[in-house]
Amino acid sequence: MQSSTIFFSGVGVPPPSLRVRSVLTPATDRGGSMSTSTGGPKWAQKTITLPPQRRGCHLITPMIVKEIGQDLSGFSCGLAHVFLQHTSASLTINENYDPDVQADTETFLNSIVPEGRSAPWRHTMEGPDDMPAHIKSSMFGCQLTIPITKGKLGMGTWQGIWLCEHRDAPTARRVVVTLNGI
Amino acid sequence: MQSSTIFFSGVGVPPPSLRVRSVLTPATDRGGSMSTSTGGPKWAQKTITLPPQRRGCHLITPMIVKEIGQDLSGFSCGLAHVFLQHTSASLTINENYDPDVQADTETFLNSIVPEGRSAPWRHTMEGPDDMPAHIKSSMFGCQLTIPITKGKLGMGTWQGIWLCEHRDAPTARRVVVTLNGI
Amino acid sequence: MQSSTIFFSGVGVPPPSLRVRSVLTPATDRGGSMSTSTGGPKWAQKTITLPPQRRGCHLITPMIVKEIGQDLSGFSCGLAHVFLQHTSASLTINENYDPDVQADTETFLNSIVPEGRSAPWRHTMEGPDDMPAHIKSSMFGCQLTIPITKGKLGMGTWQGIWLCEHRDAPTARRVVVTLNGI
Repeated sequence: MQSSTIFFSGVGVPPPSLRVRSVLTPATDRGGSMSTSTGGPKWAQKTITLPPQRRGCHLITPMIVKEIGQDLSGFSCGLAHVFLQHTSASLTINENYDPDVQADTETFLNSIVPEGRSAPWRHTMEGPDDMPAHIKSSMFGCQLTIPITKGKLGMGTWQGIWLCEHRDAPTARRVVVTLNGI
Repeated sequence: MQSSTIFFSGVGVPPPSLRVRSVLTPATDRGGSMSTSTGGPKWAQKTITLPPQRRGCHLITPMIVKEIGQDLSGFSCGLAHVFLQHTSASLTINENYDPDVQADTETFLNSIVPEGRSAPWRHTMEGPDDMPAHIKSSMFGCQLTIPITKGKLGMGTWQGIWLCEHRDAPTARRVVVTLNGI
Repeated sequence: MQSSTIFFSGVGVPPPSLRVRSVLTPATDRGGSMSTSTGGPKWAQKTITLPPQRRGCHLITPMIVKEIGQDLSGFSCGLAHVFLQHTSASLTINENYDPDVQADTETFLNSIVPEGRSAPWRHTMEGPDDMPAHIKSSMFGCQLTIPITKGKLGMGTWQGIWLCEHRDAPTARRVVVTLNGI
């Protein structure tokens, strides 16, 4: 796993005084949010190269968090955007516990997208698994936006980020992560 | 191709004077956007617990707007992010008028994702409807980003936010709404 | 319906000086990012009306970039959000090179969503292609978020933005583009 280009900007500019309005937030939280917001809104962007994975669905939350965890901790509230720069793989959020869910999802995708001789595709020049891969990529999508809450990804208890590799030949995949918040 | 309403704001800015550039925006709009942008960019985040719903697709725009409408009104331009913290339900945007569209969508999902004895799933320990629910969750996704324009969600006339409950047993579902804008 | 934790921050707060941290970014880039970030975070929003397209998948990156390219160039880092205000068409990111991929994707969608006399839909009053169009719209979605890097959309080499028109009758389609960044 390689990574490159990250830049951070505490932008933001001098109002006469900090304007913070809190609703339904206990004092301790309010304190927390204020302490991190004093630097103004921040942006961070990082390109992560994920190692080649075999065809199928793979839990990549640990890889992503390893790369951005330290940056995340500087945000009390915000959004994390994860963007896959490819058209034959996909990103989705699903179960983080039982790997059978990943296997079954791959079974499903293969069952509804025809592949091989009986498939009706025109686009075959890159191999029999290529056009099915493009279709699966649009079905699940190549982008996720996840809330940031108190320095962490605000996913549910059982949610994880999956990289779904739809090609037979494992390839390194590039993901652009953009963080924005206070 | 036609275009309309663009406004640009260098927000939270030091300036001798507020830096707002408006292009193709009538004077009245420009006034509106300036009045809300004087305080700089804002963030809001709220966790909403939606009541249990029966299996199927449900229009939840009114519930969401009831929870965030007052906060929304403070933004002239921005984005609203809605994130479902579960892996056996989904969020999507679709028809807000004829409930038959919701029923037909549920019919479609059930027709393409096998369930019961003939289904090929390994992951069966949480019931026959669980693995199909995970698949449907990745098909529709668990996250929406919607523009905010002049204090309101910028959806089209016929668009609404749907919560699709893919489990047989109704459960309360948590949604994290994050607002960001000026 | 219960709700919890909302916090609001008018950020844009007084650092002694502009706080920019760059990691692994060459000096020339750092200079570039600083030069655009001095004005604080920016927002832009524009509604684009796309011309009517025949049923099928269409590459619209050139149309979108023509409309927002000049605005994009002012952002060193950010996010571009593209939102389709309709429920019978969709937006997705896929191959930008071989138009056969677009044709094959349309073939796939038609093969899995029943249409015509054998279809089980209740919602038929707007024509036999309407309910299938709604389903396809939720399958691919109506919204994209794309990173902005150094003044351009940060898509991969082979990625493009597609408008998928799911109705038989071509109609003009409205897209709201929101840019946010520094």
